[in-house]
Amino acid sequence: MNQAQGHGGMDDGVGQQTAALAHFVAESRWEDMPAQVVHEASRAVLNFAGCAIGGSRSAAVARALRVFDCYSGPRTASVFGRHERVDIFAAASLNAMSANVLTYDDTHVPTVMHPGSSVAPPLFAWAEANAVSGRALLHAFILGVEVCCRIGNSVSPWHYSHGYLITSTCGVFGAAAGIGKLLGLSATQLAWALGNAANQASGLVETLPDMAKNLAVGNSARAGLLAALLAEQDFTGGDRPLEGRFGFARVMGQAPDLDRMSAGLGTHWELQANAYKPYPTGVVLHPVIDACLQLRAAHALRAADVETISVRGNPLLGERADRPHPRNGRDASLSVQHACAIALIEGAAGLRQFTDACVMRAEVAALRDRVRLRSDAAVGVEEAFVDVQLKSGTVHSQHVPHLRGSLQCPLSDAELEAKFLDQAAISAPAIDARRAMDALWGLHARDDAAGVVALLTTPLQ
Amino acid sequence: MNQAQGHGGMDDGVGQQTAALAHFVAESRWEDMPAQVVHEASRAVLNFAGCAIGGSRSAAVARALRVFDCYSGPRTASVFGRHERVDIFAAASLNAMSANVLTYDDTHVPTVMHPGSSVAPPLFAWAEANAVSGRALLHAFILGVEVCCRIGNSVSPWHYSHGYLITSTCGVFGAAAGIGKLLGLSATQLAWALGNAANQASGLVETLPDMAKNLAVGNSARAGLLAALLAEQDFTGGDRPLEGRFGFARVMGQAPDLDRMSAGLGTHWELQANAYKPYPTGVVLHPVIDACLQLRAAHALRAADVETISVRGNPLLGERADRPHPRNGRDASLSVQHACAIALIEGAAGLRQFTDACVMRAEVAALRDRVRLRSDAAVGVEEAFVDVQLKSGTVHSQHVPHLRGSLQCPLSDAELEAKFLDQAAISAPAIDARRAMDALWGLHARDDAAGVVALLTTPLQ
Repeated sequence: MNQAQGHGGMDDGVGQQTAALAHFVAESRWEDMPAQVVHEASRAVLNFAGCAIGGSRSAAVARALRVFDCYSGPRTASVFGRHERVDIFAAASLNAMSANVLTYDDTHVPTVMHPGSSVAPPLFAWAEANAVSGRALLHAFILGVEVCCRIGNSVSPWHYSHGYLITSTCGVFGAAAGIGKLLGLSATQLAWALGNAANQASGLVETLPDMAKNLAVGNSARAGLLAALLAEQDFTGGDRPLEGRFGFARVMGQAPDLDRMSAGLGTHWELQANAYKPYPTGVVLHPVIDACLQLRAAHALRAADVETISVRGNPLLGERADRPHPRNGRDASLSVQHACAIALIEGAAGLRQFTDACVMRAEVAALRDRVRLRSDAAVGVEEAFVDVQLKSGTVHSQHVPHLRGSLQCPLSDAELEAKFLDQAAISAPAIDARRAMDALWGLHARDDAAGVVALLTTPLQ
Repeated sequence: MNQAQGHGGMDDGVGQQTAALAHFVAESRWEDMPAQVVHEASRAVLNFAGCAIGGSRSAAVARALRVFDCYSGPRTASVFGRHERVDIFAAASLNAMSANVLTYDDTHVPTVMHPGSSVAPPLFAWAEANAVSGRALLHAFILGVEVCCRIGNSVSPWHYSHGYLITSTCGVFGAAAGIGKLLGLSATQLAWALGNAANQASGLVETLPDMAKNLAVGNSARAGLLAALLAEQDFTGGDRPLEGRFGFARVMGQAPDLDRMSAGLGTHWELQANAYKPYPTGVVLHPVIDACLQLRAAHALRAADVETISVRGNPLLGERADRPHPRNGRDASLSVQHACAIALIEGAAGLRQFTDACVMRAEVAALRDRVRLRSDAAVGVEEAFVDVQLKSGTVHSQHVPHLRGSLQCPLSDAELEAKFLDQAAISAPAIDARRAMDALWGLHARDDAAGVVALLTTPLQ
């Protein structure tokens, strides 16, 4: 089906937002991508790949892999950070789970969704079995992120606060749009892909602490891939699955702002509202960690000299992260006491600082006991005040107005590289991480996107 | 994981409905199944199998099969009514799509969902690759239907009227519970299976006329199967995915009646509220068709003698089915004019009467033009009044108080058999339909449920 036929199918349609998004994706050209958006896509893809490797040894991924491996179709795709090969649907699911499982992935700030985890995995899985250039993959990624974040914008903030897991419920559209672009679907078929995606949009906040959450995220990547492949076969998905009376936005949104799906398409880019976490913890802890790391560096603090650590933060900090006695790494990732302790003791707050073993260390536990937390509604969520009083009586104070990794204070490329290398070193030391990283940065210039994936997997054991 | 451990995991949980359903399924014994419930399960399975064969040649199934076949894993399962073999996930999806695509499947009257289409396909797919007795399959089917209809009850009628496709959004729980029973999951694991299912619950009313609707139904069968297989690997799904603050019932329901999930478990059986359609059309047409068939039989009516056909029905009849000039078979299934015409001309209203070819016949079109429709709010939805005025001036009248196939006027076993045989003859004439039907009736006594499936497929071409 060619583009002209696609146009014909939509012109008489009443579905304005679905049609607008479908036409935008169908007609978008690489030449239209602004350079800074392309660079942000490279950053997002590097961040995704690192997180997918970082999470590849998690229990959730290991358990899901047992099932997917057993029923795998043609094994043309890779599981990042591991040696197993599975079919493209399983790879899309598993790599999405890995990328999200440590809650270390990207964050589209206006919606709090993690677009990279849903959109990138099916594109890489597809690229391994088909001739896809790095440029085509990045282009599809940019468009996929654009589509799912815009749909997310239209139903935010009600959608997530009501209880839908927005990363999966909206991510599925990005996966469908991105794969649809790689397949060269017409606008009509892209609209169907969005309709097929809408019928698979799922995920609930209730199970955030459970593996079922990872399943939802994995499912969004897989279901988007399926939605587009079915649309390629003219499997019809309606003409206004997003904005219709019983469509996604009205059923799973409350008073949705439909215009936000299509306004400014091609001039405003959602990737420019995408942020990256410097620490694998709840984001409420980030400004506190920033303050502690800055204090340690500025004053060469030693844990043995510390009398008390006084933290003043937004009430959300106390509600979500007042855990003086974390039982394991998962607890610790939402413990302000642990975060302060390890930042001052180790001068770092990476994956190594949130392991079960680190939580058990006596020195860390002792310093956790010296943390005092005070809530102050006048302090912003992105902000924190920390005073460290030494046994000598000296007090050092630090105010962080905007957490590192926020849009106001984005991670540098070098910081993203360090994050990638750290995750690779911990979870997949057999990977040549520097070479893989260089290949990811050079993706836009490669003829074969698949060549990069080979560098992100470990040798067969 | 054994049952005792399962109990332990739930005892301290706050999730009452999830726990109640999980324990009920885990502890249920075949001996506890009332005979009339078992018989109703046999009827529902026969109806499912016939509909899956009937829909197996549809465009939606053919297009989906192209994709699923290409990526199939181990080909241990069958597509009913066809010769292809695919992996268990693809078979679950495709047989669910087939069973539902002609809207000829069963109807759980309190929710208007079609439980058989989501619950039966994964059970048969699993049974083909594993040693499952007919009794175990029927038992799992009864429990699966029970679980998904109860969850549906708790969110009805708001859920469906708001725009969720209840067959798929709730069907997924039935598939998960049924497969969970076959796998012998503990109560804890069954709760996780329900949580994994909740995170995949999807489907929207907007795309009812499109193939995306069939995808949603197929997805419910596949996702339920996956939910249970993951739970078997201790892939955790939370302890109150159904009733929690951000769980299924509160997020995808409005003021849900949570007690309806668990009240009367083991004494009240939802299968006894399951009905079967005698005609492959919108249910609003059914009492009109009943009346026309009764008039034709009682008075030996001939189309050539008919001057006018006057129909008086509930306003919903006019809103949904006033289509004097249907363009094709799909339109005709919601045309009261076509339904009256073919019932009087052919004395039947089966699949053959709703083909494109039948719609085009001049004789049928001429009689459609003689139908007069009047809405009357005093007439019930299950009711119709039809007057046939002959050219001689004679008027014959018929009142149908309850449509055939309703709970008040259920299809007999013989009528279900005729429906099965008719669908097999049209869509898969190579099948020995009588033998297959006898095997389905005898399912409860078979050691190998898989043996029945072999009779429901066609030879490799």
